Amino acid sequence: MAKLTQLIDNEVFRAYATYTTIVLLKMMLMSFITAYFRIRRKAFANPEDVVSFGKGESAKKYLRTDVDVERVRRGHLNDLENIVPFLGIGLLYALSGPELSTALLHFRIFAGARILHTIAYLTPLPQPGRGLSWAVGCVVTFSMAYKVLKTGLYL
Amino acid sequence: MAKLTQLIDNEVFRAYATYTTIVLLKMMLMSFITAYFRIRRKAFANPEDVVSFGKGESAKKYLRTDVDVERVRRGHLNDLENIVPFLGIGLLYALSGPELSTALLHFRIFAGARILHTIAYLTPLPQPGRGLSWAVGCVVTFSMAYKVLKTGLYL
Amino acid sequence: MAKLTQLIDNEVFRAYATYTTIVLLKMMLMSFITAYFRIRRKAFANPEDVVSFGKGESAKKYLRTDVDVERVRRGHLNDLENIVPFLGIGLLYALSGPELSTALLHFRIFAGARILHTIAYLTPLPQPGRGLSWAVGCVVTFSMAYKVLKTGLYL
Repeated sequence: MAKLTQLIDNEVFRAYATYTTIVLLKMMLMSFITAYFRIRRKAFANPEDVVSFGKGESAKKYLRTDVDVERVRRGHLNDLENIVPFLGIGLLYALSGPELSTALLHFRIFAGARILHTIAYLTPLPQPGRGLSWAVGCVVTFSMAYKVLKTGLYL
Repeated sequence: MAKLTQLIDNEVFRAYATYTTIVLLKMMLMSFITAYFRIRRKAFANPEDVVSFGKGESAKKYLRTDVDVERVRRGHLNDLENIVPFLGIGLLYALSGPELSTALLHFRIFAGARILHTIAYLTPLPQPGRGLSWAVGCVVTFSMAYKVLKTGLYL
Repeated sequence: MAKLTQLIDNEVFRAYATYTTIVLLKMMLMSFITAYFRIRRKAFANPEDVVSFGKGESAKKYLRTDVDVERVRRGHLNDLENIVPFLGIGLLYALSGPELSTALLHFRIFAGARILHTIAYLTPLPQPGRGLSWAVGCVVTFSMAYKVLKTGLYL
């Protein structure tokens, strides 16, 4: 167990663990927001979800899409598309021996950018708010990928 | 290599490796079920997938959505949305030094909940079967996230 | 820090880090290709994205789906569905003590198969080009999963 605990004792790794947990929890929040809008707007995807609204045609009308539900779902998918690379590349970056201050800068900007992206998507804020927050997250991930490949490239 | 092998020798880490592999393989199974329904229902998404059914209009009619194909795809996306957080937070949890019995409890309940979720989605079982299995998986992930942040918080 | 650097000094782990970073960057590329087609085809998903095209009905007509945008998005989702299992199972495989040459073979074939999959999807190449490249990626992941479970199974 000794060697394992050294991982979580490492400050860069603890910072990675903290910010990764934060962005993954934020991503999971999207499921709850989707459920909230589905119930509030009565817009469901599965027949078994609308049984409590009655039988037959009266329930079937709730099997529909809703603009706000779809908006949250697009935000959720965008999270998946961007947080999965952060999860993988960020872990490798944390193991590539970066300076603590540099690593913290990367993790904090990424987490901030993704939280802003969600706010920009759900409000919605005028563009380029959402576009910029997405781009900043990408730049952070590219910067970490560069460090990983520079440190450990083995083709 | 010595230090690396110690990771996989650790029982908590081996349990994480086992259950993560199981849920990821289960998630991959969704691709095969989607392909099965696409072929059986002749419902495809790409023109190049229906060429063998003939040319022109006769093939084009197979470029359509099918309720069962869409159901499997929703289940697959739900897997992605929930198994990605487990992959990341579970790894950090396994490295945060939990008791073996507590860790096993988390991993087993999560894997069981996700397998039940798939069964509930594909059968489909009446609600709240699917909703509950999804919620149980979330609770397990939140519990692991709490342990990670309690052990290693570094903002 | 000593123990951490040993991870990235390990050749199998460096190979995993390299190929994982490559496939994750390739996956991120899909976002840029989607954006390219959305702008070129003027096919957007959000009202706030089309404000610069004017107000009211004149802008609303750009809120539409486009076959090429949808094609890239399907390719992106397929990446998520297949690269997430590689990310998780590949990491556990790299820690399970495989031969360097065997590990390299797995990682190289997977990365090659996913790059071919994207080319086959976007060109598009006739089937079974895309189907085969997807299947090869699955076989590599299954082979790594078998090694992980054989080495570290702990239920």
